[in-house]
Amino acid sequence: MDQAPKSAIQAAQPIEWTESGVVILDQRLLPDREVRNTYTDYRQVARAIREMEIRGAPAIGVAAAMGAALGVERSPARTLEELRAEFDVICEALAETRPTAMDLFWAIARMRRTFAAACDAAARATAPAAALEGVRGAMVHEAQLVHQEKREHDESMGRYGAPLLPQRGRVMTQCNAGALATAGIGTALGVIRMAIYQGHELEVFVPETRPYLQGARLTAWELQQAGIPLVLITDNMVGHCLKTQGVGAIVVGADRVAANGDTANKIGTYQMAVLAREHAVAFYVAAPISTLDLSIPSGDAIPIEERSAKEVTHLRGVRVAPDVPAAHPAFDVTPARFITAIITERGVARPPYEESLKKLCRE
Amino acid sequence: MDQAPKSAIQAAQPIEWTESGVVILDQRLLPDREVRNTYTDYRQVARAIREMEIRGAPAIGVAAAMGAALGVERSPARTLEELRAEFDVICEALAETRPTAMDLFWAIARMRRTFAAACDAAARATAPAAALEGVRGAMVHEAQLVHQEKREHDESMGRYGAPLLPQRGRVMTQCNAGALATAGIGTALGVIRMAIYQGHELEVFVPETRPYLQGARLTAWELQQAGIPLVLITDNMVGHCLKTQGVGAIVVGADRVAANGDTANKIGTYQMAVLAREHAVAFYVAAPISTLDLSIPSGDAIPIEERSAKEVTHLRGVRVAPDVPAAHPAFDVTPARFITAIITERGVARPPYEESLKKLCRE
Repeated sequence: MDQAPKSAIQAAQPIEWTESGVVILDQRLLPDREVRNTYTDYRQVARAIREMEIRGAPAIGVAAAMGAALGVERSPARTLEELRAEFDVICEALAETRPTAMDLFWAIARMRRTFAAACDAAARATAPAAALEGVRGAMVHEAQLVHQEKREHDESMGRYGAPLLPQRGRVMTQCNAGALATAGIGTALGVIRMAIYQGHELEVFVPETRPYLQGARLTAWELQQAGIPLVLITDNMVGHCLKTQGVGAIVVGADRVAANGDTANKIGTYQMAVLAREHAVAFYVAAPISTLDLSIPSGDAIPIEERSAKEVTHLRGVRVAPDVPAAHPAFDVTPARFITAIITERGVARPPYEESLKKLCRE
Repeated sequence: MDQAPKSAIQAAQPIEWTESGVVILDQRLLPDREVRNTYTDYRQVARAIREMEIRGAPAIGVAAAMGAALGVERSPARTLEELRAEFDVICEALAETRPTAMDLFWAIARMRRTFAAACDAAARATAPAAALEGVRGAMVHEAQLVHQEKREHDESMGRYGAPLLPQRGRVMTQCNAGALATAGIGTALGVIRMAIYQGHELEVFVPETRPYLQGARLTAWELQQAGIPLVLITDNMVGHCLKTQGVGAIVVGADRVAANGDTANKIGTYQMAVLAREHAVAFYVAAPISTLDLSIPSGDAIPIEERSAKEVTHLRGVRVAPDVPAAHPAFDVTPARFITAIITERGVARPPYEESLKKLCRE
């Protein structure tokens, strides 16, 4: 296995704050084309979120924070009052992009608090121009801080998770829980990246993850960019590979984790966990604290989003089936008993999760 | 569930012997277009097999038998000697089409025996023209008999298997073990068809079966044609559907069954069997006697064909992944302990398979 430990945590970023504006990698075009758009208007950032140029809850949060900062930085407002009025419009536009991403609303609320505090400070300033500059600077700084914190959380998760992976051998993941989804080094892929950075010699089995092919299009691309050895497989090869290829561990991301450890994640995660247990392969969930939802007792309470059947009968615009009924549950729930451990940025939770997750959340 | 019991065993046929010639449905174009080609030259039939207009081992056997009969029927030979020389060329052309399909060689050998016997009889005839006609008639009759026997085997398998399926509810299959593959009513799909014909009310879950999409392209089409209710899913939805949709039984086909019952079949079958056991769902293999290979003790001795990685990174000509390494095991082996029963045209084998399969083969 040709390893590239140094590049392992140098992840291609889905979004960056630059002098020229907010630079977003259009993930819809991957892996065919690597197009980065530089946006100087917050409305462009809102459209990028809405039209899924950028996806993955943590990355959407970063985009919303940067969009809010961009709106304030580039605002033509000449007074604090004008800026306050415009900021409300900016926040509303960003909040209307995706209805369910928790990180989006969290990021907007945080930017609102920063804005309010900066405005209070500015109101006490004597020169109006300097006051506005102070608010602008505070917003840009806060957006960069949001991004920086995501990166640190990912890296912390990586450091906690890395020792759980084999020193040398094969691992498997699912979907894309990588840098493209988090704007850091990734959650599940962050653990794998950090392990390689620390000297583990790993090859990653990547199921393509139908119907959206996030594994084939995004994870395969991301690993290739980082020089991490990988093998792409179709989703029905998981069991055969676990049986014959000596996979040492599986790490997946999470969309929501219930108080008992039951985990909702991309469709296919559940059957991967069942197959892992059959082959005595450790099954890890990498979940930032923000995805823990201790208000729900178990996975039974997690609703499964049913998406369009057309996404199953078609693939990247090409029809693959006759016009027949198709099911498209976008997520599934993996019962906690299949999960070896849950890796967070505050540490590793082991069963019984009712206790270990509560303890991590309290810290 | 809108049932269509009468049409359930009226399967769209992949091949037919007609007055005009051998009519072959071009399966490569399904489900987009339903094109049937009428061939009057055995070389066209050979090309259709080689280029996979027709696929599935039993259907290939029928095509080879019909190709041999067509060659003799349409031969310009005026003497038995000329016909004998040409027949060797015909058989060689048909045998060179696909290297591994057992049924192909079995069918050619059978047509060779029929030809030899018919020629012997013809040699005793007084009128040379009538003698040639006798040989031609015998060959056409034998090809139709081969087709008829395949149909009867499928229907017999269906009658043995049907009572194993729930009277009402959901079942699941894998790949295409249907009429398109056998030129009968199908093996796994034949069992489902026969159950519906006998009054069971069934809805069929059809995994798309990447990378070739035989489920999405062929099984979904075949069931739709027969008016059998179906739900298409991606391969990573199998576990979630078994957990949440009340699937009562799974029936799959087989490429080869070892003496102990271990079964090689399309990739994805193994993990489906593991998931079936996890959910206490009965898992049946429909396997004609011709697929039983009692010369090998277990599945460990069955080689797994590794096919082109490009079939994983591309889908119907569309690139779905960057240029990365991909694995493509075309089959997997399901250990006998996951198989509830094996359905053959001579009856149902139950564990221990060493005894039950041997008994069926002896009959």
